[in-house]
Amino acid sequence: MTRVASGLWKNLIALQVYGANTSVGKTIVSTLLGRHLVRRTEKDKTQWAVRYIKPVSTGPADEADESYVRRYAGYPTTTLFKYSDPVSPHVAARGSFIPSDDVLVSNIAETLQEYARYILTSKGQRGLSIVETAGGVLSPGPSGTPQADLFRPLRLPVLLVGDHRLGGISSTISACESLLVRGYDVDAVVCFNDGSKLGNSEYLSEHFGKLGISTFELPWIPDVERCSKDEETEKMQEYYASKSKSAHVEELAHQIINQHSSRLTNLSTMASRTQKSIWHPFTQHKSISAPSDILVFDSAYGDYFQTLHTPKSLSIPSKTKPTLQSHILERSPGPVLFPAFDGSASWWTQGLGHGNSTLSLAAAYAAGRYGHVMFAGATHEPAITLAERLLNGLKNPRLTKVFYTDNGSTAIEVGIKMALRAACKKYGWGGSSEEIGIIGLKGSYHGDTIGAMDASEPSVYNKKVDWYRGRGHWFDVPEVKLRRGKWVVEPPAGMEEDFGPTQEFDELDDIFDFDARGQAEYYAGHIKRILDELVKRQGKRFGALIMEPVIMGAGGMIFVDPLFQRALTTVIREYDFGTNPSSASAMYPPGHNAWTGLPVLFDEVFTGLYRLGRFTSSSFLDILPDISVHAKLLTGGLIPLSATVASQGIFEAFWGDEKSDALLHGHSYTAHALGCHVANTSLDEMNKLQSSDLWKTYRQSWTQEQQKEPNGGLAVITGKEQGVWSMWNKETVMELSRHKRVDYAVALGSVLAVSLIDELGSGYTSNAAASLRDSMMYDLSNSTLSVHSRVLGNVIYLMASMNTKAEHLAAVEKVLLSKLG
Amino acid sequence: MTRVASGLWKNLIALQVYGANTSVGKTIVSTLLGRHLVRRTEKDKTQWAVRYIKPVSTGPADEADESYVRRYAGYPTTTLFKYSDPVSPHVAARGSFIPSDDVLVSNIAETLQEYARYILTSKGQRGLSIVETAGGVLSPGPSGTPQADLFRPLRLPVLLVGDHRLGGISSTISACESLLVRGYDVDAVVCFNDGSKLGNSEYLSEHFGKLGISTFELPWIPDVERCSKDEETEKMQEYYASKSKSAHVEELAHQIINQHSSRLTNLSTMASRTQKSIWHPFTQHKSISAPSDILVFDSAYGDYFQTLHTPKSLSIPSKTKPTLQSHILERSPGPVLFPAFDGSASWWTQGLGHGNSTLSLAAAYAAGRYGHVMFAGATHEPAITLAERLLNGLKNPRLTKVFYTDNGSTAIEVGIKMALRAACKKYGWGGSSEEIGIIGLKGSYHGDTIGAMDASEPSVYNKKVDWYRGRGHWFDVPEVKLRRGKWVVEPPAGMEEDFGPTQEFDELDDIFDFDARGQAEYYAGHIKRILDELVKRQGKRFGALIMEPVIMGAGGMIFVDPLFQRALTTVIREYDFGTNPSSASAMYPPGHNAWTGLPVLFDEVFTGLYRLGRFTSSSFLDILPDISVHAKLLTGGLIPLSATVASQGIFEAFWGDEKSDALLHGHSYTAHALGCHVANTSLDEMNKLQSSDLWKTYRQSWTQEQQKEPNGGLAVITGKEQGVWSMWNKETVMELSRHKRVDYAVALGSVLAVSLIDELGSGYTSNAAASLRDSMMYDLSNSTLSVHSRVLGNVIYLMASMNTKAEHLAAVEKVLLSKLG
Repeated sequence: MTRVASGLWKNLIALQVYGANTSVGKTIVSTLLGRHLVRRTEKDKTQWAVRYIKPVSTGPADEADESYVRRYAGYPTTTLFKYSDPVSPHVAARGSFIPSDDVLVSNIAETLQEYARYILTSKGQRGLSIVETAGGVLSPGPSGTPQADLFRPLRLPVLLVGDHRLGGISSTISACESLLVRGYDVDAVVCFNDGSKLGNSEYLSEHFGKLGISTFELPWIPDVERCSKDEETEKMQEYYASKSKSAHVEELAHQIINQHSSRLTNLSTMASRTQKSIWHPFTQHKSISAPSDILVFDSAYGDYFQTLHTPKSLSIPSKTKPTLQSHILERSPGPVLFPAFDGSASWWTQGLGHGNSTLSLAAAYAAGRYGHVMFAGATHEPAITLAERLLNGLKNPRLTKVFYTDNGSTAIEVGIKMALRAACKKYGWGGSSEEIGIIGLKGSYHGDTIGAMDASEPSVYNKKVDWYRGRGHWFDVPEVKLRRGKWVVEPPAGMEEDFGPTQEFDELDDIFDFDARGQAEYYAGHIKRILDELVKRQGKRFGALIMEPVIMGAGGMIFVDPLFQRALTTVIREYDFGTNPSSASAMYPPGHNAWTGLPVLFDEVFTGLYRLGRFTSSSFLDILPDISVHAKLLTGGLIPLSATVASQGIFEAFWGDEKSDALLHGHSYTAHALGCHVANTSLDEMNKLQSSDLWKTYRQSWTQEQQKEPNGGLAVITGKEQGVWSMWNKETVMELSRHKRVDYAVALGSVLAVSLIDELGSGYTSNAAASLRDSMMYDLSNSTLSVHSRVLGNVIYLMASMNTKAEHLAAVEKVLLSKLG
Repeated sequence: MTRVASGLWKNLIALQVYGANTSVGKTIVSTLLGRHLVRRTEKDKTQWAVRYIKPVSTGPADEADESYVRRYAGYPTTTLFKYSDPVSPHVAARGSFIPSDDVLVSNIAETLQEYARYILTSKGQRGLSIVETAGGVLSPGPSGTPQADLFRPLRLPVLLVGDHRLGGISSTISACESLLVRGYDVDAVVCFNDGSKLGNSEYLSEHFGKLGISTFELPWIPDVERCSKDEETEKMQEYYASKSKSAHVEELAHQIINQHSSRLTNLSTMASRTQKSIWHPFTQHKSISAPSDILVFDSAYGDYFQTLHTPKSLSIPSKTKPTLQSHILERSPGPVLFPAFDGSASWWTQGLGHGNSTLSLAAAYAAGRYGHVMFAGATHEPAITLAERLLNGLKNPRLTKVFYTDNGSTAIEVGIKMALRAACKKYGWGGSSEEIGIIGLKGSYHGDTIGAMDASEPSVYNKKVDWYRGRGHWFDVPEVKLRRGKWVVEPPAGMEEDFGPTQEFDELDDIFDFDARGQAEYYAGHIKRILDELVKRQGKRFGALIMEPVIMGAGGMIFVDPLFQRALTTVIREYDFGTNPSSASAMYPPGHNAWTGLPVLFDEVFTGLYRLGRFTSSSFLDILPDISVHAKLLTGGLIPLSATVASQGIFEAFWGDEKSDALLHGHSYTAHALGCHVANTSLDEMNKLQSSDLWKTYRQSWTQEQQKEPNGGLAVITGKEQGVWSMWNKETVMELSRHKRVDYAVALGSVLAVSLIDELGSGYTSNAAASLRDSMMYDLSNSTLSVHSRVLGNVIYLMASMNTKAEHLAAVEKVLLSKLG
């Protein structure tokens, strides 16, 4: 997907003319509107300059739209790609040069930008550039991509020419809906009034009025079918001369100009409006006291946000900062918006690119079929299909039941309720008066609701939350790091005695070679000693082991030694947590549903569903948890939805005669149909990636050996066969790890994290990585790409969508390396 | 919106033929397919019978589609409404009889049902009924409603006839997208192969393949333009004779038959699949041990679920219960699905009807424009517009900041964090080691995450949740009840001494006449005595007053005396909660942002955003809270989203130099663009209802006086001017309150609750109302309407969408009264 700025300039209105169908009069509208404007003088004497751009034209040159426009409107025209066959571009282009979507869109962007520059240098002028499409809104471009998808990166405001003919009401509304589904703003719908009794324009005006879209009727076109060439020209000249001055066209022009102004005004005031009314998540508002500290996103597509230029983004020295609005509106030579790579995968959610029209349609379908249908005692297809898909994908024979909630934090709370009840039943503990904790890892993070917070150790996230009570014990963890080109497993500071010294490995793969690494007695011994102290000596009660497999995200992208997570699980599952001598294990008879020790809960909210390259991150550890929690990528990056997947043994702990024995948890939108259906669509799309050439290339670059070609090329590669790999370039990651400013790097799946050396100390409150983040976003002195990223203390991380192409990642890596210096 | 069953029968396939445009060959496809089937014999000798239904035909009778079909296919045809003018039905019908959408849809449903009965009695036969639309998918029907909306209640599977002409790729895909947006299943797209090089069918086949929609190419139609009538007939007869047997048509027929079978199979297995893999919210699974205990929703539209018939729904005596599947598939004479009124407003969320295409398009637009864009340090238009809309709508000058989360429970947790921090700052309390509680009401409920649970008193919801700790004090409340036709305010049992005796009122309105009711010293005195005991004597610390204004929902639709909520707020705001002698109130200087006593948090998750008939339920109390929490109706009933709205004073408690001073809360999908945009659309639509004739009529029936006509008829009526009214009929509510089985009733806005007399005791564990609920759903012995409802102990409640029409509510009331006996 192309990296271009959305087409918005102060002095230039770039307008895309789409047709509800072919032959509805797009070129006539372009001519009328353009001719009106070039002859119009604003009150302030501003003159309008108009340019007509036809990206792709098919048919004989003398019948081409551009020559028509030139003849009747007299303003400059440009056609970028011409094919002589009068058919759809994707057919006409066969056997000729076929520009890629990227080339075509970049060409339009450059042509517009050039014109914007010309307008800017012509004092007193304003510009309109009409970009006229071919055929209908979804008629294929040269590459075969439907035009509304092809041109989407520019997201130009649309003038939709309706169909005045019989059937035209339907085709016009449908065409408009296809544009809306793709996130276009339709500034105006026009329809020729052919004087027939079909009443299309009247109907459309009422219909679109309800959607807030303005409709304009245009005067009917002379019948020139049986005219000679000269007669036709004369008639049409007369038509344009009189009608381009008509009130209808004037109103249309007014609407287009107004929409452009209000979009600019809106963009320029959004930051200050936000500052007035929004309380941001995870934000110290004192630190974003200027409106320019707030990023304004106009839209997003593929891997890129369309971001408003601010004084900060334009690197204007602060002393001479003009007011934000005047700056943007008056001085900027470039587009008002710029594309920034979404380097945090939109807070770890993004999987299939922004503005993905497949997901957009899926959302609309479920909304249209169900809206929301309540789920207590009821069911619907998207929810049950998703549950089965999750259970199949997790390939964990223990797991049998799916419980839905709305986000990772609520899903964790449900998981904790499940585990604690099961443990209490097993060990004969009861009632909320007894304190039961969880066992976790230091650096863990499970969400922001009180229950989820209580499952993490005291930290900066929770120390000032009055109802926070850390409930449990958290183990120190040995970490995996790539330092100076070498993969190491490093014990926690000062714990070499228990954990042994730092170990070195040739390849990341080797760290996951548990057979070769052996039983890890040093880990098991350490864990048992601590458990004995807590359980046997202090009499503490524990009800669950809760871990983020492999990488602890919010804690700072901590890559935990997988062998340690295995050892911990093994010890816990063999340990007797019964502190009550009368603990009746008979209450909970062993059997195929049984778990031992404590229920093992994996928080895969961040790490699961392909984020690390596999459906489940538990497969890296080769552990089958009793409860598995999923969110973020579940909907591919569109809407909140989460699932807590549990074993039969856990489920049965809530089976009883009393309603109060049940898991009395549920949110109103539990299993909302829209979320479940989008999730099904997303998981389908991401599943296809597993066997795609894109991922094959990524995998091969890390695993160094040729992957066995799966049968038929489409078989799904699962679990360990998938290897340990990243979408980020291996050589780049090595190079980063050797950089003088870098302590260590880690990479897995779509995640890359770089820990910077910070002499002032590290941790969440560190600002070490912040300046790097800012320069990647705003300093375009020696690069042309803005990268939006997030930091966690002294760690800067980058995260891509699961379908991001290598060339985009390479460009991002280049920016990172260059800004590191 | 029509109350019809979705058109699905075992032995009859009802198929709707839509066209991508007019003149694309819909009737030819109908003829080919029908003719193929009537001449087809299945392996098991089943014969196919085919009927053609044209709901609305325009144009001369001899050119009508039905006579064409009869001529060439020879099977029976029916046209329901005919107009001679060859234009769109909405134009043709002008000046003639215009059937309402309800009448038209019911007519089709009856015609199909009649045919289904006929098929059932003809041994060995299976039926296909082709319902052919007019023009394109959104061409208007007689009333002007686009056909795809008009016919949506039936949700017949669709055969879409593509457009083979130039521009047809675009119009076919767009037409299909318009169908998907409305929740249709498109079983097949067909396209005639005209032998041109346009390549439409090839392109469409690839495009739709990616969406999982099958495409079929049909053989080209003979050119009969210059033929005589007889020649034309001969040529076409020949075409149909040969082509209806072609492989293409056979494959198409196969697809249609297969899709029908798999839909039936899918429906019949969904309950058991659900039972296998789903863990339901708030459900004791032991009590839903049979698959027939699970409601299967195929879809929903307007006020109605489309529900699968089960032995239970068909009132088959349990001893003779056939297996679910065989029952549905073999014996049912009626449609497989039945409509059930959504009487819980889909767990209190529904505001604008299921399958609302305006919301569906809004969701798709935001998905297409943004996907999800991360919100920390950033902003986007839907979020800021929604924040401003909420602040404007709440009309509470204290409130200035909006914090977004994903559901009511998380929004409450945020509100609690806000309030506690502010209180701690004011009173100089610090650190999580000190226990700080909240003040609330008995019977309250704020959500299922641990923090939200802790804000409610111990109850059946939380008593077995191991991490639950009720933190606070909860006051007994006097309740408003309509008993035996009289509105009363009743003190809590045994508290007459403090609260005085039961008071009677003529009208519900009078209970809200605070001037007339005076200062309520008895309430204030009681509250102060308890606070003195807790704070002054026991030294307890409190950090917030948390209340659901007017009605406590999950607690059992408890209608709290508003005067008590006012008294409590007044006392709390005047009370000094400083328990620490050194409490430095100077730390938090008074000013325009100041609150006094404790921050007042209103949980409007259920009661707000029009549920009780007003934008904010705080207006009933005439109290300005410091924190206001909203969810459920925020998106009109489509997707989860919530907002915690806070005052500037609360916001400033988190202002500081440290990041750890900030409100470190945030979910990945915070302020997701899709939710915010849908919310903006929903609030717009609901705002329009305020001045609609629908609501005016509801209001007038309760307030008994003519409402002052607002200027221009569209001015928004706010706050107290809106009166106290319900969508439920006042006389019916009176009648209910006098019923011998009824203890009392309450009604406000779209909520109606009836408390049944239960001699075995009341409370959440009661089953008193469950049998009434079941008979309203399943016992159709003396009514034709199923009503799906929910109970809370001995309280049965009904809740409508905010745009439900009076005749639908009247039908529901009739069912309720009749089942009460």
